[in-house]
Amino acid sequence: MFSGAQISLYPMADDFVGVILGALGALDPYRDRLRIETDDISTLLVGPPEVLFPAMRDLFVAAARSGKHCVLSAAISRGCPGEPDDPICSSDALGGPAGPLGPRKDAAIAAVRGAAATGQPAAAQFSLYVMGTDDHMDEIYGCIDFLKQSGVYERSKHFCTKLRGDAGAIFSALDEAFCRFGPGAGHVTLDVTVSANSPSAV
Amino acid sequence: MFSGAQISLYPMADDFVGVILGALGALDPYRDRLRIETDDISTLLVGPPEVLFPAMRDLFVAAARSGKHCVLSAAISRGCPGEPDDPICSSDALGGPAGPLGPRKDAAIAAVRGAAATGQPAAAQFSLYVMGTDDHMDEIYGCIDFLKQSGVYERSKHFCTKLRGDAGAIFSALDEAFCRFGPGAGHVTLDVTVSANSPSAV
Repeated sequence: MFSGAQISLYPMADDFVGVILGALGALDPYRDRLRIETDDISTLLVGPPEVLFPAMRDLFVAAARSGKHCVLSAAISRGCPGEPDDPICSSDALGGPAGPLGPRKDAAIAAVRGAAATGQPAAAQFSLYVMGTDDHMDEIYGCIDFLKQSGVYERSKHFCTKLRGDAGAIFSALDEAFCRFGPGAGHVTLDVTVSANSPSAV
Repeated sequence: MFSGAQISLYPMADDFVGVILGALGALDPYRDRLRIETDDISTLLVGPPEVLFPAMRDLFVAAARSGKHCVLSAAISRGCPGEPDDPICSSDALGGPAGPLGPRKDAAIAAVRGAAATGQPAAAQFSLYVMGTDDHMDEIYGCIDFLKQSGVYERSKHFCTKLRGDAGAIFSALDEAFCRFGPGAGHVTLDVTVSANSPSAV
């Protein structure tokens, strides 16, 4: 299965280039397990979820530690029928049968509650899209129910769910939403926004 | 049918608040046809596509005219089964039977080629997601084929298609992708990034 993300980092600062360049070192521990390509809009990360989400977390936290208002935006995808399979994406986290929703929700809640803290507060919102099935709303509602019990749920919004908490738990919740909802071999995507240091945050 | 967008504007500048506040007046001509709610992550716009896309275009262009590197990010949705219907979203652009792909592509191409220019160059990328059907890739490939003939196609990327051109044509292409692909009454979403004044742009 092919999996990866198009990510963009937006530091709201005159020195946005410096903040981005200063954060990129956070990707170094993951570089041998990712394929990375950058252009003027986004950076492609191709790799399995267990590498993608920690890599995005560490990049975001490194940028947020600048103290500037920073946002990470990502289009994350697995199982797109139009993408070639790639050995770098091989993962035990994907591909099995989905099984009943209840145990999947319980496993997701346990994972988020056990996520290591980073010390970086964050707010986030995301949408889960499940394609190629006629029961996609069951999976989406199951995911929302997991989020409500995850410890990082803030509220439902139109088109998305808003989270708030430590960046470690936030990225763990995104990882769990991505891997545990929708068919194991299905086409599933997330549209993600993670924010730190907003002057508008309550 | 319920339709709308969660949008965020990211000016990469110390004075990001000033750039955002300075651009908000561009929404004034549309306010009576939109429901608008803002929090620390995004602004919700609820309304029909023929108001949503021009409103997003004018907001983006107003921010880009600051000369700062600005990005507009949006999660745009129609027909989500979990959203209540809303009279403000009533539109002739949605809800009919989809019909064969060929005439839909031709109409979309003509619309983009006829879009009024804004004078603001932009780059963009987006993903089209069609849910609740098992032929979603046919609609996605049809949309990509339209984009290739639209005059603003730059290239295919993993998970998305990249556009470049005048912001008027770019937002017209997004509008056409949103309204003409996927079932007329179906659940369709776009994950959109539009960028101006990037120092990395070619």
